[in-house]
Amino acid sequence: MFNLCSSTWPKSQLRADWAELLATPAFRPRALFDRFHIELLATTEGAHERLDHHRAIRESGWDGQVVTAYRPDAVVDPEHEDFHASLAAFAELTGEDVLTWQGYLRAHARRRQDFIAMGATSTDHGHQSARTANLSDADAAALFDRIVGKDWTAQDAELFRAQMLTEMARLSLDDGLVMQIHPGACRNHNAWLHRVYGRDKGADIPARTDYVGGLKPLLDRFGNEAALSIILFTLDESTYARELAPLAGHYPCLKLGPAWWFHDSPEGMMRFREMTTETAGFYNMVGFNDDTRAFLSIPARHDVARRVDCAFLARLVAEGRLRDWEAQELAVDLTYNLVRKAYRLPDAPPRPLASAA
Amino acid sequence: MFNLCSSTWPKSQLRADWAELLATPAFRPRALFDRFHIELLATTEGAHERLDHHRAIRESGWDGQVVTAYRPDAVVDPEHEDFHASLAAFAELTGEDVLTWQGYLRAHARRRQDFIAMGATSTDHGHQSARTANLSDADAAALFDRIVGKDWTAQDAELFRAQMLTEMARLSLDDGLVMQIHPGACRNHNAWLHRVYGRDKGADIPARTDYVGGLKPLLDRFGNEAALSIILFTLDESTYARELAPLAGHYPCLKLGPAWWFHDSPEGMMRFREMTTETAGFYNMVGFNDDTRAFLSIPARHDVARRVDCAFLARLVAEGRLRDWEAQELAVDLTYNLVRKAYRLPDAPPRPLASAA
Amino acid sequence: MFNLCSSTWPKSQLRADWAELLATPAFRPRALFDRFHIELLATTEGAHERLDHHRAIRESGWDGQVVTAYRPDAVVDPEHEDFHASLAAFAELTGEDVLTWQGYLRAHARRRQDFIAMGATSTDHGHQSARTANLSDADAAALFDRIVGKDWTAQDAELFRAQMLTEMARLSLDDGLVMQIHPGACRNHNAWLHRVYGRDKGADIPARTDYVGGLKPLLDRFGNEAALSIILFTLDESTYARELAPLAGHYPCLKLGPAWWFHDSPEGMMRFREMTTETAGFYNMVGFNDDTRAFLSIPARHDVARRVDCAFLARLVAEGRLRDWEAQELAVDLTYNLVRKAYRLPDAPPRPLASAA
Repeated sequence: MFNLCSSTWPKSQLRADWAELLATPAFRPRALFDRFHIELLATTEGAHERLDHHRAIRESGWDGQVVTAYRPDAVVDPEHEDFHASLAAFAELTGEDVLTWQGYLRAHARRRQDFIAMGATSTDHGHQSARTANLSDADAAALFDRIVGKDWTAQDAELFRAQMLTEMARLSLDDGLVMQIHPGACRNHNAWLHRVYGRDKGADIPARTDYVGGLKPLLDRFGNEAALSIILFTLDESTYARELAPLAGHYPCLKLGPAWWFHDSPEGMMRFREMTTETAGFYNMVGFNDDTRAFLSIPARHDVARRVDCAFLARLVAEGRLRDWEAQELAVDLTYNLVRKAYRLPDAPPRPLASAA
Repeated sequence: MFNLCSSTWPKSQLRADWAELLATPAFRPRALFDRFHIELLATTEGAHERLDHHRAIRESGWDGQVVTAYRPDAVVDPEHEDFHASLAAFAELTGEDVLTWQGYLRAHARRRQDFIAMGATSTDHGHQSARTANLSDADAAALFDRIVGKDWTAQDAELFRAQMLTEMARLSLDDGLVMQIHPGACRNHNAWLHRVYGRDKGADIPARTDYVGGLKPLLDRFGNEAALSIILFTLDESTYARELAPLAGHYPCLKLGPAWWFHDSPEGMMRFREMTTETAGFYNMVGFNDDTRAFLSIPARHDVARRVDCAFLARLVAEGRLRDWEAQELAVDLTYNLVRKAYRLPDAPPRPLASAA
Repeated sequence: MFNLCSSTWPKSQLRADWAELLATPAFRPRALFDRFHIELLATTEGAHERLDHHRAIRESGWDGQVVTAYRPDAVVDPEHEDFHASLAAFAELTGEDVLTWQGYLRAHARRRQDFIAMGATSTDHGHQSARTANLSDADAAALFDRIVGKDWTAQDAELFRAQMLTEMARLSLDDGLVMQIHPGACRNHNAWLHRVYGRDKGADIPARTDYVGGLKPLLDRFGNEAALSIILFTLDESTYARELAPLAGHYPCLKLGPAWWFHDSPEGMMRFREMTTETAGFYNMVGFNDDTRAFLSIPARHDVARRVDCAFLARLVAEGRLRDWEAQELAVDLTYNLVRKAYRLPDAPPRPLASAA
């Protein structure tokens, strides 16, 4: 949890050992997948990206479950450098005229089916803000024309991203994909790093995020649809008790994702539980998932989350606020059952949970 | 505290038992009032509403103390659907020409006397923001003319509500009523619920609230009046340590109300104590009061608040930050004496506190 | 920590005792300085103020280390009542034409050398916001002309203060002074107090502060300079985990100062550790320093900080998140070594730390 370097650890030797270990069959990805008891791993691919790797996994005869998730950011954000290149690939993969509003929407619907065929049960949206919009068809089409005509303002770009969250909710009502909204990162904050090395190199800083006003247009249209499921994440902890828990407690379509990114840590996870549970309730949460890019870190991350959750539940039992059998039930639900349910994973013969060390 | 449904509890039978119990004399409201050791219960009535029920209680010979509080929101908020109907009732009850600025202010002063006659010691203001204003008489009169002339903007409406908080402070200096400001709820957030069932049906979500800038015009005018008492509540916990505690620690007229609504819960109450006490001090608080609409929940709510406060005090004693006798004194003050003082309740022979179970 | 007045303490007698004690040689400032084991005390002086007292201390033959710090607020803030009088003194002390942009900048560079001669290793900036700017030379010069020409708007004043933070960073790269930014106080909030008694009389209230956007222009220019060191403080705790810890974790030039002012208290210090450590890391902190004006309070303040830090470290050890020897090393670093390093104090024979009572 803390990066403390001790001068007494024989680091260079450890590294050599690791390299040797990684070359052994026991450390091949699929062997680790099994050893980690991973039931399902979801990647994200762009709407404009091919799913060949997922097809290859499926056709390989391996029984590990690796699925994709629909992440259309690159074709939704006009301020992304590759927006037009991504649109071109999007057109090619779908055969639609993505430079017209209706063709663009049909391309999304079609592409989502491709993702569903590769196991996707969810979409993922990494917008700068949680702003949504609910434009009339005519206004949306006119906005889209400006966007693809390259004659747009920063306000247009923000409005287009906002409108697209609502369009994605509409498509989710049709095809059942669960929406995940990950807003609030100020991307590429370090100008030098961005200039020299390009985007997504680690200089992302959380920013204040408004959910109460931002989500209202989408919720005005779809907030009461029980068939819709939107999982909200945040980098702004001040919204836990003030905005997210009350929203998730009220709207049938909203659930809260676990403590995310900078807050995916022991103190951060505990603050999440303490600041959301009383208002949102345990069963408007989705259990733990991490968004690690480090495969080897997965067991440790889940282990930390379970320990923190169990510490929280244990305190509630010790203070007489939960009974012990309730806490036991909740510990399994928060770890496993809520995840399967929230992400609409197909029923599976329940794998017995490994007993704690 | 947590809504956990256990399938092993015979719920339908429990409900039947409750219905039977509620029909017995021991569960009549006045019997419960006594059994709960309620010393005083304050309702709120609108400035435009009759106080007949309060008169009936007083004339009934019952010795339970039920008083009213002056809540003028309906005649202060031009965006309320019933604003003009409420103004009409306000005029009828006061005999004033409430469509002129001076008549409108006289009507408030007069009506507050009616409420005082029915035991009121406080007013209550549920504005969307904590904004106040300090207009000149001429500007206030001109604004009022626009408001009642129905030719106003959203900015005018917000400015009028802001000005009215300052006018209420002025009237409180005259008649001694304690002001309670409950800002920061984004009301009727669920558009469908609002359209179909009307306002105040539970879809209120907290919003970010600015006290430092918002209250300044009122405080510029009355902030140093020791005879004025304004109790601040919040739905935005990020203001506890940053704004509310410093403001209450500085201004003679300001006190902090307890953790409110979404935060009226064990974790929420503890955060309130932890984030306000060091800066505001215990004696700029008003003790616990709840704003429940569920009569039967009153004892449990007060019990929870006392347990949380005692847990906080016990930790301070354990850490050597308070002496035990100080904590004992504080426990009673936070529960009882500060409440009587903050709400300017008439001195009463102190009722011995029931010993804890 | 809590201001509890007990009626059983013989206060008037205590006061008499204190007065007697303060008259004894053991309570003279330099005797206390030694008794408190103070290794170094830094004052702040304005850029326009003489350093005669510091010179007198140095020439007195006393071996106590008292240094100054460069606080140019009075010549940087056009909205300060004494701005032009301060500029005049600034000109006199430096011999520069401070009414031209280049002369003004040269005066800063020159004056900073005077401060360095009196032991300064740091500058201090108490701006209302954390806003910085990165104007072209021509735009900065034009802005400066408006500012000294007295024909400026509030926006100009804010932009000038913002630009000056970036200029100060540039000068720090030249002369090695560590920058301290203390933003976010809404000064002189109490209008009556300000009118009658003048500024800086205690009516300062924290305000919401934006670091992510505010610091970006300065960071765009100097954020990756390892030779630059900027210590950030805050009065807005909601920025700890969301903004400050991620910024300090990323940018080589940024470090976090300890919990400040309203938050320099047991609960406040613990929240600081809990909300920043996991993301920023212990070694992007600067150890404890207080900004007390009460000389006698220094030992108690440092004692409280050490106890809180040790309580935090002890919990990490108890939870298996740190080893005991790591915590021991950290306890000394957080208290002593990080302070010397962060403030670039000259190496000194390490004074053995007094063992805890």
